[in-house]
Order: sequence, then structure tokens, then C-alpha cells
Amino acid sequence: MASSTSPTTEPGPRDGAADDLRAAIDSLDPAALGVEFHAIIQELYPICRSITGEGLRASLRILQRIAPLELHEVPTGTPVFDWVVPREWNHRSARLIGPSGEVVADSSRLNLHVLNYSVPFRGTVRLEELQEHLHSLPEQPTLVPYRTSYYREAWGFCLSDAQRNRLVPGDYQVNIDTTLADGSLTYGELLIPGLQDDEVLVSTHCCHPSLANDNCAGMAMCAALARLVSRTKPRYSYRFLFVPGTIGAITWLALNEVRARRIAHGLVAACVGDRGRLTYKRSRRGDTEIDRAVVHVLRSSGQEHEVRDFTPYGYDERQYGSPGFDLAVGSLTRTPFGEYPEYHTSADDPSLVVPEKLVDTFRRYVEVFEALEGNYTYVNQAPKCEPQLGKRGLYGAVGGKSHAQASQMAMLWVLNLSDGHHSLLDIAERAKLPFADVRRAARALEAAGLLLKSAG
Amino acid sequence: MASSTSPTTEPGPRDGAADDLRAAIDSLDPAALGVEFHAIIQELYPICRSITGEGLRASLRILQRIAPLELHEVPTGTPVFDWVVPREWNHRSARLIGPSGEVVADSSRLNLHVLNYSVPFRGTVRLEELQEHLHSLPEQPTLVPYRTSYYREAWGFCLSDAQRNRLVPGDYQVNIDTTLADGSLTYGELLIPGLQDDEVLVSTHCCHPSLANDNCAGMAMCAALARLVSRTKPRYSYRFLFVPGTIGAITWLALNEVRARRIAHGLVAACVGDRGRLTYKRSRRGDTEIDRAVVHVLRSSGQEHEVRDFTPYGYDERQYGSPGFDLAVGSLTRTPFGEYPEYHTSADDPSLVVPEKLVDTFRRYVEVFEALEGNYTYVNQAPKCEPQLGKRGLYGAVGGKSHAQASQMAMLWVLNLSDGHHSLLDIAERAKLPFADVRRAARALEAAGLLLKSAG
Amino acid sequence: MASSTSPTTEPGPRDGAADDLRAAIDSLDPAALGVEFHAIIQELYPICRSITGEGLRASLRILQRIAPLELHEVPTGTPVFDWVVPREWNHRSARLIGPSGEVVADSSRLNLHVLNYSVPFRGTVRLEELQEHLHSLPEQPTLVPYRTSYYREAWGFCLSDAQRNRLVPGDYQVNIDTTLADGSLTYGELLIPGLQDDEVLVSTHCCHPSLANDNCAGMAMCAALARLVSRTKPRYSYRFLFVPGTIGAITWLALNEVRARRIAHGLVAACVGDRGRLTYKRSRRGDTEIDRAVVHVLRSSGQEHEVRDFTPYGYDERQYGSPGFDLAVGSLTRTPFGEYPEYHTSADDPSLVVPEKLVDTFRRYVEVFEALEGNYTYVNQAPKCEPQLGKRGLYGAVGGKSHAQASQMAMLWVLNLSDGHHSLLDIAERAKLPFADVRRAARALEAAGLLLKSAG
Repeated sequence: MASSTSPTTEPGPRDGAADDLRAAIDSLDPAALGVEFHAIIQELYPICRSITGEGLRASLRILQRIAPLELHEVPTGTPVFDWVVPREWNHRSARLIGPSGEVVADSSRLNLHVLNYSVPFRGTVRLEELQEHLHSLPEQPTLVPYRTSYYREAWGFCLSDAQRNRLVPGDYQVNIDTTLADGSLTYGELLIPGLQDDEVLVSTHCCHPSLANDNCAGMAMCAALARLVSRTKPRYSYRFLFVPGTIGAITWLALNEVRARRIAHGLVAACVGDRGRLTYKRSRRGDTEIDRAVVHVLRSSGQEHEVRDFTPYGYDERQYGSPGFDLAVGSLTRTPFGEYPEYHTSADDPSLVVPEKLVDTFRRYVEVFEALEGNYTYVNQAPKCEPQLGKRGLYGAVGGKSHAQASQMAMLWVLNLSDGHHSLLDIAERAKLPFADVRRAARALEAAGLLLKSAG
Repeated sequence: MASSTSPTTEPGPRDGAADDLRAAIDSLDPAALGVEFHAIIQELYPICRSITGEGLRASLRILQRIAPLELHEVPTGTPVFDWVVPREWNHRSARLIGPSGEVVADSSRLNLHVLNYSVPFRGTVRLEELQEHLHSLPEQPTLVPYRTSYYREAWGFCLSDAQRNRLVPGDYQVNIDTTLADGSLTYGELLIPGLQDDEVLVSTHCCHPSLANDNCAGMAMCAALARLVSRTKPRYSYRFLFVPGTIGAITWLALNEVRARRIAHGLVAACVGDRGRLTYKRSRRGDTEIDRAVVHVLRSSGQEHEVRDFTPYGYDERQYGSPGFDLAVGSLTRTPFGEYPEYHTSADDPSLVVPEKLVDTFRRYVEVFEALEGNYTYVNQAPKCEPQLGKRGLYGAVGGKSHAQASQMAMLWVLNLSDGHHSLLDIAERAKLPFADVRRAARALEAAGLLLKSAG
Repeated sequence: MASSTSPTTEPGPRDGAADDLRAAIDSLDPAALGVEFHAIIQELYPICRSITGEGLRASLRILQRIAPLELHEVPTGTPVFDWVVPREWNHRSARLIGPSGEVVADSSRLNLHVLNYSVPFRGTVRLEELQEHLHSLPEQPTLVPYRTSYYREAWGFCLSDAQRNRLVPGDYQVNIDTTLADGSLTYGELLIPGLQDDEVLVSTHCCHPSLANDNCAGMAMCAALARLVSRTKPRYSYRFLFVPGTIGAITWLALNEVRARRIAHGLVAACVGDRGRLTYKRSRRGDTEIDRAVVHVLRSSGQEHEVRDFTPYGYDERQYGSPGFDLAVGSLTRTPFGEYPEYHTSADDPSLVVPEKLVDTFRRYVEVFEALEGNYTYVNQAPKCEPQLGKRGLYGAVGGKSHAQASQMAMLWVLNLSDGHHSLLDIAERAKLPFADVRRAARALEAAGLLLKSAG
């Protein structure tokens, strides 16, 4: 390959972090990362999180050991668009004792037992009255459901339907030791400045208590992504948000309305560790660069996967994709929310998270960042007919063979489509070649003086 | 649901007839309507109609008992674009007597026996000469065909091929007692004024003699549609045309060229009662609102159906879709013209019309009107993030469940897409929800002050 | 059909060559043309062609007997974009003699045996050294490959892998009597002037030695196409180029850069005679008129065929489709280059070319020219409703039948879509009718005064 000392053709750090991200992918140790992820999930899992409170703070502090998140506190009562930051909920214990003194439910054994945001209550109630405060799943009788009551004051317990059916008439002692008081909503944030002010957003929800795939896995993965990106000098600025679902995203958007306009590309991470196939839910606009980058990465993966259109239901892509923002934010998950039987039940425990699958999801996120970082548009400097690659050492010398090598095909595609109107991602899609191969070809041609980056 | 006294959020009569049409659909008595349709068809069937004449007038007068059509007479010789209104044809009797005095064909038994627009003729002809005046169907030897000779003076009889083959040599007495003389072309019209001058056109042909599905059924159905719409206060003005095929539509367009420009949406109704599936033939432009409304209604019906592109052959969509008009007029039929074996033969008798199918077609027309009437574009008044539906009583209070109810999904879709660029029909299509559900959600959100109709 | 003496409605020679080309197709004698093609291929096949030299000149002179090509000589050293016209190669003989005096390879028996562009060499080499100069195909052990070394000085032989494996150790006598010296690159060109300056380009490569399908067949077919077009008075100007692959196309484009901008439509012809199905590779833009014309012709052929998107690999469409030119040039072949097992081997001999298939390819090229020549846009002069075709003798008199004849359907389509925005090819595509039928209908309507050619 020809070498050159011209500053315009020398690949340098201004190219973004694509090279570093590719190197990280190529040197990834899946087993070691899987072990690390599993340990973090085990640590996060038992904590009783909610959309506010000490459980949320404690979880974010664990993530701070992985990446330097900043914790923000937004006071109760702060208006955030059509909503108001709620009172802070804290939970010490919640027990339900049966007529014979037996423990029916105890949040210290499984924090799903307490209705999340339950108001404090201490007293004795008869079974008939108690029933109005119980939640169970008749169709999954052995599982404890996860239920919340953020915006209607209520107390309650969740338990398996099998257990509920065994409850005998009589007096039950309720002792729910929680507080609901003015305080603040907490979220974690890390901004990694890049060469450009445009941002890549990665947002994940942190409000669920003992649910491993939804979303201890997402919290761990996003922290590891933040750690990786912070070790590069990226082209884009990267913003990682660890927020309570719905109200957290709304709060961030309300307090950062101007900054939100800088988000050029974004992903909502959730349900990233189960054994299901990767599933991409497009952004509201559906054909943005993030949509095309993710679809390209999934196609190139050679794995079974699914791509779906946007719907206004799901996780925080609902807020980022509301019509007043309409940000280019999709959601890359494994099995989508609500579609695996363990979803929002006691069966979403750490055993549901498959380390290799979680590492695979991590890898695809990094490949998406690689595509965004490296997705430049070049202009062919010898656009009339093909340039003679052979004299530059870029082409085989003996002719007559019928198939060009993959690297030569990538060069021919890059040369042919680098007319200022096609980015490398456009070229990779049209050529049906992996982005990394196309980018490698472009860098070789750039080094040979045959390509220049488009100013546009 | 929140109530409101603000005039801007109160759903009122200015919303068009969608509510009334939905109520009519929901309270439809299919059996009763089927009986009514069958009686009308039985009454229309024996009349010897043509593109002019007393049979046509008599038929329109029957329809006037259902809806207040106005009858128009256009004199023979009136130039209508490239055509001229022809002389008026009237038929008293037509008999063909064989060599032994037997009746070979008698229009009083079946009016298809006389070549439609046959000139009068009385005389004796030998079999060889007679053959040039006979029409039969060798491939359907037991059926009598329907044939016309509007623009070339001729006399003739139609009979079954089986009968024709049994004709013996000899002299045949022909007695065709018809008149072809200056008079007028008759058509029926009903304009139901709406809130807007833009019109919905429904056009059906009335020129065929004893053919039940083509088009006694269409005449009956369109009259019933006119009756229903005239009992509402529609948004659009509705124009129902009962015209002789081709020349009638051309005549109306020539005499109403300026008014025709007001036709915003239209359908040609024909072959609406056979047992075949519903078939929609798109307008010439193919992607107009009427096309999308009909396709949406058919998809939401859950029934097998077919959608076809426009072709310049068929019924009067040919004229409405000529390049000088290019109106948004499609055609909603059951089995399309020419595609059922009984088409234009004596087998298209009242038994071919299945009352339930005719009522089903009627219902789909009403649903199309409902979609047109209710297809407003709204603007979300709280577009930044989702509004808090719960505090307005529009959302379930206990969270954590995985699937929103259909009504909640409809509200989320309407909020998300009501950016001023998506009508309710757009939203129904994208959400894959029935139009009525989407409209109901929009009305609830409008009542809660979260939506305003777009001025555009 | 109505006749007319008005100059605006009389079809005349200004209509291009579509009528003549259709007549040529209809009167084609496939057997006779097949015999002619076979004779030319037999004559071209044994000549040792390359990208320069006497073999190329001799081949073009043979084609001059069919069509009056002009031969151009471009001197060695002429800069052509990023390339330079190479030295001229000429070959007299090349023999390889084994240790026992046996002839291992002799280019007089098969000119593929000599590495094309081999430098001269005379000497004795041991087997081990010889191996570095041998080319064979381990996966096709009985076939001799075609190999070139245009831009790296080398000598060598090509032979079957079976023979190579039988070579015994010892001394081999090499006698390659070639010259590589300043001279010129030769190409053939025929410009047939048309009514317009815009050009139709047909380009075929002439550099391959004894390969029959690739491309003696293409050379013969293009010469016959040039002969046919030169006997008409076409609307477009036609430029036939017979060039050495890659460097020849680059040379022509470099020396004719301004003229190249006149190329409105073009095809690269190669591999046109094998028994495979027709395959069209779209132009770089993919949706140009040539793309649509070829796809229409292939669809109307009723034969199995394939349409592919452009790729920047293949024959000279690579150069015509480089981003600095981006010409509307596709490639119509039978089995594409590299996809039949005989490709670039000794098995691509005259027996691989099937005369009927080559004639079929010829016919499709002519049909493409017919479509280009006749693809006018008309304006309906009676656009409001349908004109009365019957009074002009253009329509059957007895009505009521369900299916219009094909010719009537073509007239209805042409009338309906001739709004100044649809060319006849657009209409043929939408109507799914053969172009010739649509054009015939348009000419009849034009003669009746119902259509005028659009000025645009």
C-alpha cells in the first residue's frame, strides 16, 4: 500500500473512534466480560429499586465503580412537562402475616412482594378486605408479579396465585414500613465529549426492583459501554443516561430541552440478556442513520434477528420519540418487553440472563457505535473511469480470474459510490459488505490519495 | 373520562356524520335490509331498461320511493364532449316466430331476447339471413346473452345456443316493435349538502335490462345509501348519480364540468350482490384518500378481499378517471364485471344476488363514508413527552402489566402521530387499528383538551 | 381506420426507426442469421487477440465486412485519465518443450497457452523455476485457463492442471516469441447519425483471444446490430464501440469526454451466446430509460430471465458507470461473466455458443432499440371522458361483451395515460402490454387525430 505524508490523506485521530472500537471488538474476551456482567447483576438484583429513593441511588453508586456517572437529584414537585416529580419512596420492610402467624409475604425475601410505591400501612384486615390489596397471576400461578402504584396512593402485596388460593379466612397482619415524602428523583448521567457536539444517546431504565433481565442486565451493559467509549476519542459526544423509566426520561428531557436537540442518534437499552434473538425497534422516523446502522449491524451479524417499526408503547423511546422531540432514537433489545413469559415476574431472576447473549448484545452496540463513528462520506479524486489500482499495489497483478477478492470489491464499491452523495454506510448496504470491510477499503484509498472526506 | 365545557374540546355536530354512520352500522338489521333489497330487485328486474327510454324512467321512479332522487332529461342531439346524446329507444314487444309457428324468442318472457336498441323490424326472413341477426354463446349453450347495438342501427335477437342449433330451415317471422326517435336521456341525481362543498360521489349504472347483480343490486344499494346519508348532517356533500353507463356519466360530466371539480372522493358501485369477495379497483391516481379509506375498511373487515390497480376498462370509473378529469374515483364491487360466468347472461337473475352479501357491501360503503367523514388531522397540545393520561382518568392506575388495552394503544398512537402531518386514517393504517377505534380515542383526547383539530 | 392528410397526424419518418426495427424483427430468419453468426465466430476464434496488437486489428477488419467500422489507433504512452496506453503486444509463437523433447504447450494449437502479454523469453529452465511461470486450474483439471499480465512484465504458459501434474523433473525449453514495443491501441467505432444528437451506445470488448462466447459472439452480434441500424433512419444517433476491455473503454472516454455526455442510453454486450437465460445488469442509476426498456423487453419475452442491480465489477459498464460519468449504461448478457464453468477457459470454444440463443439475444437488443426509438410521449386531444372510438372505426359495434380485444385495451390505456406525463414505455409497463402493441395503438390514435406528440 502506498504511504503518504500529506496531511490530507493521513488517517488520524480526527477519524473518530471507529478504529479503537473495532480493535475492542476484535480483542473482546467474551468469557471474562460475561463473568463481570454476571457479578454486577448479582449485586444489583436484590436491591429494592423504584422510580425514586435509596434503592435507586445505591444501584447507581454500584455502576459508578464501572464508569464515572454523575448522580443528579431533582426535587419532588418539580414540574416536568405534563408531569410533576413525585414524592420519594423508601422501603424498609413489608410483611404480611396470616391468621396462624405464618409469613405470607415478606419483601426481605423477594422485594417484588411489596406493591412498588405502596404507602405505609400497619393493621389487621380480614381476608375479604385483604384480597383487594393482593396481586397475583392466575395464568402463571407459581410466579410473583411485579406491580406498581406510582400515581394512586395504595398499599398492597404481590404473591403467587397458588399461595393466594391457599389463604384461609381470618385476620391478617399487615406491616408495610415505607415512606412517601418530599425528596428527589435520582438519575445517573455520563457525557463523554467528542470532536463534535452532536450526541449519541444511550438510555436505560433503573427503576425496576428484582428483575434481572429487565433491567439489571441493561444497567450493567450500559455502564460497560460507557467505560469503553470513555477510553476512546470519539467523533460524536456520547451521553449515557441511567434513569427511572418514563418519569426519569421525561424529567431529563424537560430539564435539558435544548441539549436534547443535539441528540443525533440514540438507543434505548432494555431486556438485553435473555436467550432470545436481537430485536431492533426503529425510531419514530424509521429511516434515520441509527436505524440504518443498527439494521446493517444485525444483518452483517449473520444471526437471526428481527426489525420492527416504531410503536408508541414500550420503554423510553416513547418519550424520545414523542412528536415534540421526534428524536432518532430506536431500541435494541433481545426479546422485547412483555414477550417472554418471565417478564415482570419473579422468574426474571439472574438465571434468565445468559452471559454469552448479554456479551453478544454488548458487541452489537459497539458495532453500532463503530458504524456511526466511521460513517463518513468521501469524494473519489479520480472519478472518471476506475483509477489504476494495480500501480498503487492495491490490486492483483495477474488478470483473467473471474472473482475479485472481497477487499478489492470493497475498494471498487467505495470508488464507484464516493460521489459525495453516499456515506460508507450507504455503500456497505448497497454492496452488502460488512461496514468494517468498507471502512478499511476507504482508509486504504484515502491513504493512497484517491479519496478525500467530504466537507459536508 | 374527564368532562369539559370548553367549546374547543366539546365534540359536536361540526364533526360530520361519522358518529351517526357508526351508530347506523352498529344498529344494522341485516335480515330486514336484505329482505328490502330483495323486494326492490324483484321489482326492478323485469323492466326492459336501456340507456334511454321509459324502462329507465320507470326504474328511477321506483328508486324515488327510497330516496328523493331528482330526474333529469337531456334532449337527443345534445353534444357531450366527443359524443352526442342518442335518440331515445322504447320497446313494446319483440317476437320471433319459427316456420311451424312456434315462438322462438319473445321479449315479454325475457327482455334479454331483444337486441338492446334494436331498430323496429317486421317481416319474414329465411334462416340463413336470420342467422346474421342472432346472438348466442357457444361456450355457454343454455344461456341467453345480453347484447346491445347503441351506435349502429341493427335489429336482432339473443337466444341460447342450444335453441339456435335446433332452428330448422325455413321462413321466420320477425316482429320487433320498438321506436328510436328524438327524446331524451334520463338520469337520477341526489345531492345531500354537507358542511363543506367538496363532494363524495357515488355513481351507479341503470341501463341494463334483466340483469340482477349487474345492476339492479347496485341501484337498490345506492338508493339505500342515499337514504341513510340524507338522514345525517355530513361533513362532505354527497352526490348520488343513477346514470346509464358510459353515455350517462359522460353526459353528466359534460353538463357539470365545473361541479365535477368538487368531487373529492368517489366510488362507482356495480356487481355488489353476488357471493364473491369484495374487490376494490383503485382510482387512476391510486393513492388518494378514497383509495386508502376503502383499503383500510376492507383490511379491517377481516374478510378475504382483493385490491386492484386502476385500468381504463370497466364501468364509469373510466370516465371519471379520464385524463381530463382524473377524479379520485375508485370502484368497490364484489366479483368484478366480466369475471363471473353469469355475467351479461340470463343467469344473472335475482337468485344470483345473495342478500347477506349485498348487505355486507352496503355496510362497507357506510364504513368508507364513516372514514371519510371522521378523517380529521389533529394536533397534540402536549407534544413533548407523553401527557399523563392517568391524572385525566384515561389510563389504568396499577402499572407493571405488559400490554396496554386496545383503547390505550389507540390513544398513544393518536398522541404520538398527531403532529399535524397525520390524519386519523394515516394513524389507523400505521397502528393497524380499526378506524372507529382510532376516532374514538381521538374524540376522548379532544374532550380532555389534549388534541385540537388542525386548521389545515 | 380513419385516414388523414393533416401533417400533424401523419406518421412519418420523423418517428424514428421503430417501424423498421419491428419489421426486421418480424421478418427475422433465425436459421440464416445463426449460420452467419457461427461462421463469423469460427473465423474470429483462432486469432490471438489482446488489448493491443495485430490480432485485435485483424479481428476488427473481419467485422468491417459486416458493418463499416472505423479503426482508430491511439499511440502507446497516451495518458488516459489515471492510466497510460500501454506498449503494443504482438505474438508470433510460444512453445514449451519438455525434457524428452515433447511439446508441452504450443500457442499455435491453442492461443490460451501463452500468458497474454507475456514478454519474450528464450531459454532453458528447470521444472522448479518453470512452475512459477505456469497457470492451471486445480478445480477444473482438464481445462486450460486464460490469464493475462498486462501491467506487470512476466512470461508464462497456461495449461491444464492434469498435464501440469504429469510434468517430470528436468530441463524445459521455453521459446516465447513475442514483442512488447511502442505502437498503438486499436479500437473500432461506428457512429450512425440519427435525427437527434443524443446517442445510444453499444459497447463490446474485443481483447480476448480464443474464447468464443466471451466475446467472439458479442463482436459478431454487435456488428450485425450496427448493420441493421445503419439501414434505418433512427431517431437517436447510434455509436457502436468495439474496444479492448477496460483500457479501451477508458481510452475512448478519455479522448471523447465531451461526446460521452451525449450518451443517453447504452448497453455493454458480452457473453451473449451461451444457453443460459438472458440477464440484465442495471445501470448505476438503476431506473433510467434503458433500464426500463430492457426490463420491459425481457418481461414481454415470456422467457425466464434475470435482472440484477449494478455492481462496480464486470465489463466496461464499470467505466461508463464510474461516478465521473455515471452514464445510463447497463449490460445485457446471457450467463454473466464468471458464472458459467467454461468462463475464461479452453472450454469456451465455438461449441459453447448456441446459434438460436445468440439470435435470441440479437432479437432482444433490436427490441430494446425499438422501444427507445418509439418511446414518445403523447397528449390526448380529447381528454375529457373517453372519445367515441366506434364512430372512427376503432371499436367493435356490438356491445355487451365482457372483454375488450387487446388492441382496444391498448388504445384505452394510451388514451387514459397520454396526459403528457407518461411515455409509451410507461404505458406499456403499467398496462402490462408489449411495447409494440402500445405503439401500434398510439399510431392509430395519432392517425385519427386523437393524439399529438408532446413537444417536451
